[in-house]
This record gives sequence, structure tokens and C-alpha cells, in this order.
Amino acid sequence: MPVALSASLLQTAQEDVAAGIDRLFDRLLAVPADPRARLYEAMRHAAIAGGKRLRPLLVRAAGDLFHVDRDSSLRVGAAVEAMHVYSLIHDDLPCMDDDDMRRGKPTVHKAYDDATAVLAGDSLHALAFEWLCDPATHADPFVRAELVRELALAAGPAGMAGGQMMDLAAETSDFDLPTVTRLQQLKTGALIGFSVEAGAILARIPADGRRPLRGYARDIGLAFQIADDIMDVEGNEELAGKALHKDEEAGKATFVTLMGIERAREQARLLVEQAVAHLAGFGDEAELLRAIARYVVERDR
Amino acid sequence: MPVALSASLLQTAQEDVAAGIDRLFDRLLAVPADPRARLYEAMRHAAIAGGKRLRPLLVRAAGDLFHVDRDSSLRVGAAVEAMHVYSLIHDDLPCMDDDDMRRGKPTVHKAYDDATAVLAGDSLHALAFEWLCDPATHADPFVRAELVRELALAAGPAGMAGGQMMDLAAETSDFDLPTVTRLQQLKTGALIGFSVEAGAILARIPADGRRPLRGYARDIGLAFQIADDIMDVEGNEELAGKALHKDEEAGKATFVTLMGIERAREQARLLVEQAVAHLAGFGDEAELLRAIARYVVERDR
Repeated sequence: MPVALSASLLQTAQEDVAAGIDRLFDRLLAVPADPRARLYEAMRHAAIAGGKRLRPLLVRAAGDLFHVDRDSSLRVGAAVEAMHVYSLIHDDLPCMDDDDMRRGKPTVHKAYDDATAVLAGDSLHALAFEWLCDPATHADPFVRAELVRELALAAGPAGMAGGQMMDLAAETSDFDLPTVTRLQQLKTGALIGFSVEAGAILARIPADGRRPLRGYARDIGLAFQIADDIMDVEGNEELAGKALHKDEEAGKATFVTLMGIERAREQARLLVEQAVAHLAGFGDEAELLRAIARYVVERDR
Repeated sequence: MPVALSASLLQTAQEDVAAGIDRLFDRLLAVPADPRARLYEAMRHAAIAGGKRLRPLLVRAAGDLFHVDRDSSLRVGAAVEAMHVYSLIHDDLPCMDDDDMRRGKPTVHKAYDDATAVLAGDSLHALAFEWLCDPATHADPFVRAELVRELALAAGPAGMAGGQMMDLAAETSDFDLPTVTRLQQLKTGALIGFSVEAGAILARIPADGRRPLRGYARDIGLAFQIADDIMDVEGNEELAGKALHKDEEAGKATFVTLMGIERAREQARLLVEQAVAHLAGFGDEAELLRAIARYVVERDR
């Protein structure tokens, strides 16, 4: 497919998924008329109208490969996005990265307070599992149970939370390239991997048949993180909607400090090629996944 | 059954469950030889050898009613205890209740640091769902999916996290008795309710057949909280293993401030009687649940 056509495919899908996620969050996070209202408002502040919705887009794109019902993909997308947003809320706390801005808005603890931010993150974490396990997500309880198990693994100490712990340790350790790679595979790769694999789980594709998708996800996850490290050095804070140059200030080893910016850029390009090569067994229906792979190294996130 | 016999039944079951939970946590929280070691050590500090394990004991006692496999009950008990421990870790943070001692030990943010405490809580939260969804918990995916859904509801903004948000609001609001009751039903009642109901879910008892257990759980949950409020006024900090008189200092409405200590004590006694009455349809096999009901108003927690 010509690149221009593929870019327009990506834009259409991204807009559709972003609108769907906002509609779903608006409904699932309706503010109750009781003293919990502030908690829901804080969740809405962080979750609605923010980000590029990369993870829900990946669920949709992988689900489309197997003709998965799009309402199912969207619900799983909302769950993984809730998980991502909770991690951003906690990561931004003063005792963690201490960030004031996120997605061009004040962070939750700035707009509300630290305690509300802790509870809003905790609440989105629990809701992600509640939504996955609702029969509305998939009629087959085996599929729901498998989605929960994979998301829990991707989010917990063997995944995202473990990667964040390594990231804390990175400030006082000299990590080498394999360790930084592992850190990033846990911190951002695991949730990206879940998003892609979830599309196949929804279609009841057994673990064996998901291997090309896992390879694709691993490669775009790393490419994404390298692009992020490059943006941290070269990016525009206004476009990014958050503070940059934080790794540099913290003296953390990143792909850029370990490889140099030109080699890092080249590596990201190679990873995208490799990701696309994993999809060779699929035809035109994988075009959205290919377009996403190219996009992750170009986005301003 | 005579009260002395029932007390010894309780003690035996409690010791057995406590030992089983510690063994399971020791295995499930094995420290990895990588930069995540500190995260696992923090989780172990909070989770192992602590508390009375009331929630796992309730899962076991309710499961025994229906001859549920005790390894299954124990795994669900570990999941609900992980959820409880995560909530204590976050609740103790400086931006929340700011507590230095818990279960007679320094709190996680005191023994480690605030960032590690946030991530240790987040990790236990995810692990609770991972453990529930493991086929080792129950062979039937329908049961696993239902357990996850009920635990997510009990832990999230419609349960525990919502109750904690109300608790924050209680410091600046004048809550009346119905509002304090609702606060406590969410904050501690929801997880206690899950623990009791999980025993029946493991035995595939449909929602209708769980009604007496839900009534029992609601009553002991409130009795438990009233006893806690009384302990906050009258208790011994050394026995309790944590700071007391905190509600008084914060000027929060509690069952004691709203009802007076004697009426509160009487109400707790009535709730225990009512809880036991819900079990009228069960015979001797419900004796452990009856013993637990009496115990919740006597414990030093």
C-alpha cells in the first residue's frame, strides 16, 4: 500500500479509536452524586481527551486482523488505556518523577492533590480489570480470564511496575545497554505487548499463533522508547505537553546516552523494519499495524 | 457448640491459614536477582508475617461450608490479603494518613522510601489479579473471571478506593451516621464481603444462594469497623501495633463520636448476633464463621 494511503488509514483509525475511548470513559467514569465525586473528576481529568491512544489503537489494529468485534476491541482498549493512565498519574507524583504537566494539562496531583492522585491511580487500576472481566467485553469467560491474566502480568512487578522500579534504580546505578533494554521492555514494552496480543486473544488464537504479533510488539515497543529518548533530548516541550530533558538532568543511562543519537535513530529505523517483517504472513489487513510501526518513531507522543 | 470449643476451632484455623498465607507469599514473592529486588523486599516486608489474616480466614471458612478445596481457598485468600496489604501501604503514605508504624513494624515508606512504597502497593494490586486468574486457583475459567470481577468491584472506586476517598473527605465534612456507615461499607466492608462470597463462588453457588453470606458479611464488616473505632479511643498502641487516636485528632465523625461509646458497643454486639442469625440455615459446618463473627468485636486487630 502506498505510504500516503497508509498514513490516511492510520489517521482515520486513530481518530475513530480516540473518539470511541473518550465516549467509553465518559460513560464508565460518570461522576456519582456523593463524596466520591472528586475521585471521579480526577480520573476524568487524567483519562479523557488525552494522548494519542496508541495502546487502544494497537488492540483495534490487531483485533481487525482476526475480524474481532470492534466494541470488544474498544473495551479492551479502554482497560489498557486506564492502566496506562494510572501509571502516568503515579509516575508524576512528587515522590516519583515530580512532574507538573502531562498531555498539556496540569498533572492530577497539581490539579487536585497528592492523596487524590494516589486514589485516582488506584481506582483506574482496579477498573481496568473490572472492565475486562465484564461479559460485555467478551462472551467467553476463558477469553476474559486470559485477558486479565495477561494484563496483570504486563502491569505488575514482572512488567510495568517492575520497569518503573528499575527506572528508579537507574538514577543511582550505571546500567548497560542490555539492562536499559530490559528496563524499557518491562516499563513500556509489556503494556504495548499486551495491547497487540489482546487482539489475538479476543479471537481465541492460541499462544503459538500469536508469535509474529509478539515479535512485532517487542520491536515497536523498543523503537517507541528509543524515539522517546531522542525526543527527551531534541523535542519541543510545548508539542510534547510535558517536561523534557529529565533523563539528562537525572544522569540516567538511556538509549541515546549509550548509543549516541545517530546510532539510536538508525536502530529505531531498523526495529520498525523488523517489526513490519514479522507481519509478512498477513496481507493488506495488517496495513494498519504497519502504519503504526512507522508512526511510533515519528510521533511527538 | 460450646464457646470454648468454638474459640479453639477459631485459633486452630487462624494459625493454619496464617502459616499457609506466609508460605504462599514466600513462594509468590521470591526476590529476583536483578534491580527489582528492592521492590520485592518491600512487598515481603509488608505482606509476610503480619496481621490476623482475617480476610483469608473468611475465604477458608466460607469455602469450607461448600467443601471447597483448601488450596483454592488459600490462593484466593492470598489475593485478597495482597489487595488489603496494598491498600495499607498506600494509606500509610505521607500524603495519605502519614503513619510510621503498621502491624508493629515500620511502614513501607519508612523502611524503604515513598516511591518504593507506591510501586510495592501497585505491584501487590496487580499480583492479586494475576494470582486469582491463574488456573491453579480454579480449573473453571468462569469461576476465575467471576472472582476477578467481584474483587475488582470491591477494590475500586465502587468499593475500597471509593471508601478511602470518602475518608479523606470526612476530615473536612460533617458526615452523618448513614454517610459514615456507607463510607465504612465501602472502605472495609467491600473486601470483607468479597472474602466471604469468594468461598461460595469457588463452589459455583449462584448469586441467589449467596444471600445469607452477603448478609453475614455486611453485619460483621460493620461490627468490625465499630470495634475499630472503639479501639481508636480505648486501645493500647503497643497491642494494636499502630498509632491510635487518629480519628479524634483529625476531628472525623466515627461510630463512636456519632453514637457514644456505650451505644456503639451495644450496636456491635447486635450486629454480631444478626450476622450469626444469617447462618441459621447452615449446621455445625458454619461454626467457624460464627466464631469469627464473635471474634471481630474482641480482637486487638
